[in-house]
Amino acid sequence: MLRVDLNSDVGESFGNYKYGNDEENMEYLTSANLACGVHAGDPMVMRQTVALASKKGLAIGAHPGLPDLQGFGRRKMDLSPEEARDFVLYQLGALDAFIKIQGAKMTHVTLHGALSGMGKHDAQLASGIVEGIKAYNPELIFTGVPGLQSYEVAKAAGLRVAACIPIDLNFRKGGVSIIERKKAARDPKEVVRKALKLVKEGKLETVDGVDTELKVDILLVHGDGPNSAEILSNLRTSLTEAGVEVAPFPSFV
Amino acid sequence: MLRVDLNSDVGESFGNYKYGNDEENMEYLTSANLACGVHAGDPMVMRQTVALASKKGLAIGAHPGLPDLQGFGRRKMDLSPEEARDFVLYQLGALDAFIKIQGAKMTHVTLHGALSGMGKHDAQLASGIVEGIKAYNPELIFTGVPGLQSYEVAKAAGLRVAACIPIDLNFRKGGVSIIERKKAARDPKEVVRKALKLVKEGKLETVDGVDTELKVDILLVHGDGPNSAEILSNLRTSLTEAGVEVAPFPSFV
Amino acid sequence: MLRVDLNSDVGESFGNYKYGNDEENMEYLTSANLACGVHAGDPMVMRQTVALASKKGLAIGAHPGLPDLQGFGRRKMDLSPEEARDFVLYQLGALDAFIKIQGAKMTHVTLHGALSGMGKHDAQLASGIVEGIKAYNPELIFTGVPGLQSYEVAKAAGLRVAACIPIDLNFRKGGVSIIERKKAARDPKEVVRKALKLVKEGKLETVDGVDTELKVDILLVHGDGPNSAEILSNLRTSLTEAGVEVAPFPSFV
Amino acid sequence: MLRVDLNSDVGESFGNYKYGNDEENMEYLTSANLACGVHAGDPMVMRQTVALASKKGLAIGAHPGLPDLQGFGRRKMDLSPEEARDFVLYQLGALDAFIKIQGAKMTHVTLHGALSGMGKHDAQLASGIVEGIKAYNPELIFTGVPGLQSYEVAKAAGLRVAACIPIDLNFRKGGVSIIERKKAARDPKEVVRKALKLVKEGKLETVDGVDTELKVDILLVHGDGPNSAEILSNLRTSLTEAGVEVAPFPSFV
Repeated sequence: MLRVDLNSDVGESFGNYKYGNDEENMEYLTSANLACGVHAGDPMVMRQTVALASKKGLAIGAHPGLPDLQGFGRRKMDLSPEEARDFVLYQLGALDAFIKIQGAKMTHVTLHGALSGMGKHDAQLASGIVEGIKAYNPELIFTGVPGLQSYEVAKAAGLRVAACIPIDLNFRKGGVSIIERKKAARDPKEVVRKALKLVKEGKLETVDGVDTELKVDILLVHGDGPNSAEILSNLRTSLTEAGVEVAPFPSFV
Repeated sequence: MLRVDLNSDVGESFGNYKYGNDEENMEYLTSANLACGVHAGDPMVMRQTVALASKKGLAIGAHPGLPDLQGFGRRKMDLSPEEARDFVLYQLGALDAFIKIQGAKMTHVTLHGALSGMGKHDAQLASGIVEGIKAYNPELIFTGVPGLQSYEVAKAAGLRVAACIPIDLNFRKGGVSIIERKKAARDPKEVVRKALKLVKEGKLETVDGVDTELKVDILLVHGDGPNSAEILSNLRTSLTEAGVEVAPFPSFV
Repeated sequence: MLRVDLNSDVGESFGNYKYGNDEENMEYLTSANLACGVHAGDPMVMRQTVALASKKGLAIGAHPGLPDLQGFGRRKMDLSPEEARDFVLYQLGALDAFIKIQGAKMTHVTLHGALSGMGKHDAQLASGIVEGIKAYNPELIFTGVPGLQSYEVAKAAGLRVAACIPIDLNFRKGGVSIIERKKAARDPKEVVRKALKLVKEGKLETVDGVDTELKVDILLVHGDGPNSAEILSNLRTSLTEAGVEVAPFPSFV
Repeated sequence: MLRVDLNSDVGESFGNYKYGNDEENMEYLTSANLACGVHAGDPMVMRQTVALASKKGLAIGAHPGLPDLQGFGRRKMDLSPEEARDFVLYQLGALDAFIKIQGAKMTHVTLHGALSGMGKHDAQLASGIVEGIKAYNPELIFTGVPGLQSYEVAKAAGLRVAACIPIDLNFRKGGVSIIERKKAARDPKEVVRKALKLVKEGKLETVDGVDTELKVDILLVHGDGPNSAEILSNLRTSLTEAGVEVAPFPSFV
């Protein structure tokens, strides 16, 4: 049977600043990546988000980012591999405190923004981060885009990996997503069509007109998009109707 | 046999800013309170300080503070009990990541600066914090000054407690320490004399001329004093010569 | 002729976090208080907000706050009068850079959140802040609630003052506003009724059933309320129809 | 007559963290670059440093840096030219507030750390920053290393420029300095020898054995070196004895 996970980044509010439609989106998600108080999130947001995700039965992952709140962790910073590792460890531990006191479990790690992007291009940095994750908890699953450096480094280091595709973005040949700073509303039908093709046929459509062959585990929808809940709701229904089981990915990767 | 622990706050450097004489002081300490990257410290400092403390065989504690780096966690802030609890939990978890990957163990919690001071005067805040510590790890020992609110709340909540006296400060009747912002050099002989009196006779000298009766577990020396290592060295030698065993407090409280 | 100013706090977005309905609200405002990158706002937000306010012909004021972004400057912090003064000066200067390069002029200062509240209860702190404002630019107008410490200290120090009433809040006897953390939508008709009574009769309604006598210069509407633009639009129209001139307050105080 | 300026970065302390030997060094300086509360410094440090520099009659410059306190502004960050400009403007304004209330004058701008380095390699970024400085105050002098991008962009944009050489560092052919993270003590005699050769003969020694021809205006000595005051004292005496006038550079560039 075909299985896939529906996933979003969550817990990215900060103090008085609300971000994303977490509560609504979580109705449809099976896993979530929780910000850890560095690129976004704060201790109170983290506790509340763990509580919500735990109640909904989602697989709970850490979403560590760069120490740049004003830039939302999206601006590349020249960290050494040791600094990157230590910043990630700090965030894993901080989030785990809230997971632990609520009797839940951290299942995975999904790097955020430029930290993810840097790991894609810098093998040493990727190794530093992966080494930190492995030292912290070798059971953690590393989620990312297959073929990219950090994903391959994690896999080679013996971490379990899960292939995660941001299905509400467009892609270039080879599977590289085209990042948008301003989230536009997406046509849910179109996202569903691409998702079904990817899940059922293993083909990722690209703007270059050539499909990329890919086995996907996780479909990520950006939680701050204007109609993210609508997209997620459509995905959940359509995937289920098409005979695809929507379930937390740690149960099947 | 009489036993006492020698303790300092450590790991309070931040980035390019060095603070305290950690490495030198640790030669004489038996336990240490490590800053957690909020009022002071950062991920790299935390990893290095855990490594150092672990190598020296010190009891390793968390030293959480207020989210006010510029004020070094010394300015009172109006946090709610929930906020105080969550900020403490965040810091316990973050520090624990570095302790965990180095195969060490967190033994205790020592509140920093105004967070400690606020807990002294606000029972609800103290309860919030103590509840968080207990939920995180009920084996953690709470160190503080007996008689003060947070210490008594921790004790009443069932946490193990250890009586910690900053022996390089002066005290008022009742055991309240007189905080100094600018650390002056202390006469090591004078500190030793007061320490011996406290450890052997259970009497804490005050500037009011009246001794306070007190059973001490931990003698704290401020690690940023100009002659902190000299004081600690003198204490260690003199206590040992006087037949007092200097040992990590978790072994005897 | 009766005159009054319509005012909001603006420029409180930060990086990726959007806050308030600045652009829409500015259609109806005659003055605005701009966050200065400490409790909220950042350099890019400041430049854009100055540009917008300048284009609309608003009186542009500084809205300095406490160094507590996570708490949005709303948590009391124990700053000394010197620290409060220096933090305010820092913010006045930073905002003025963006005002200066756009050929505009800073007309006033409105303290934010807990900084405002602290000044109300601590004469020394209020004096420190007022001294800083006066040293920076003695032409600046201090806006606040008459009767409160900071307002009276500013007036006594020889600064021009303007009486500012947050007309979308409720009040207690004596004119103290009842702060709401979660902004609820307000009935525009009700706000208009209270505003007209205040502007035309000099009577501020309170929840205690007793009016407070007050000459108002500025009606403040919170820019983050769900229907802030609707309230402002109603106020502007109704005041004008009632023969009240709605104009930037520096022209008439 | 030959003239040169003695200069250091100052005001880089932050809260409880002290950095550099500002007060001692200022005895020998003729100009200083003051941190602006972003990569280092805070409002209280800024006020105190302006007071000290003003009392000593130094030319007072802004030393803006990247928004990365933990990295001391030394880690490259991917800012857009607009962001770089706005962060610089913010800092110019903030520092100017303290200069203004003390009746002093901002004479120059010296970019810090990675912000300086980024400007060297990115013409658009350099243009953004230079445009901001010029808009803020076209009388400001831009100091830097001749030949590097930001210096040349500033010069081409019509700003006055001053050639600043960090004389306590080593250089490669072409005049590129070799940055050291850990400041080692330097032999003052050796620094003096190189300084005299540079000032009198216009020749900058390099580790490659080839001198670079250069007309220097400012000799910078790092204020955080272990013997910075000794070096500065030796430089001041030796330059004067050699008939070189040591004076604030705005008087002669």
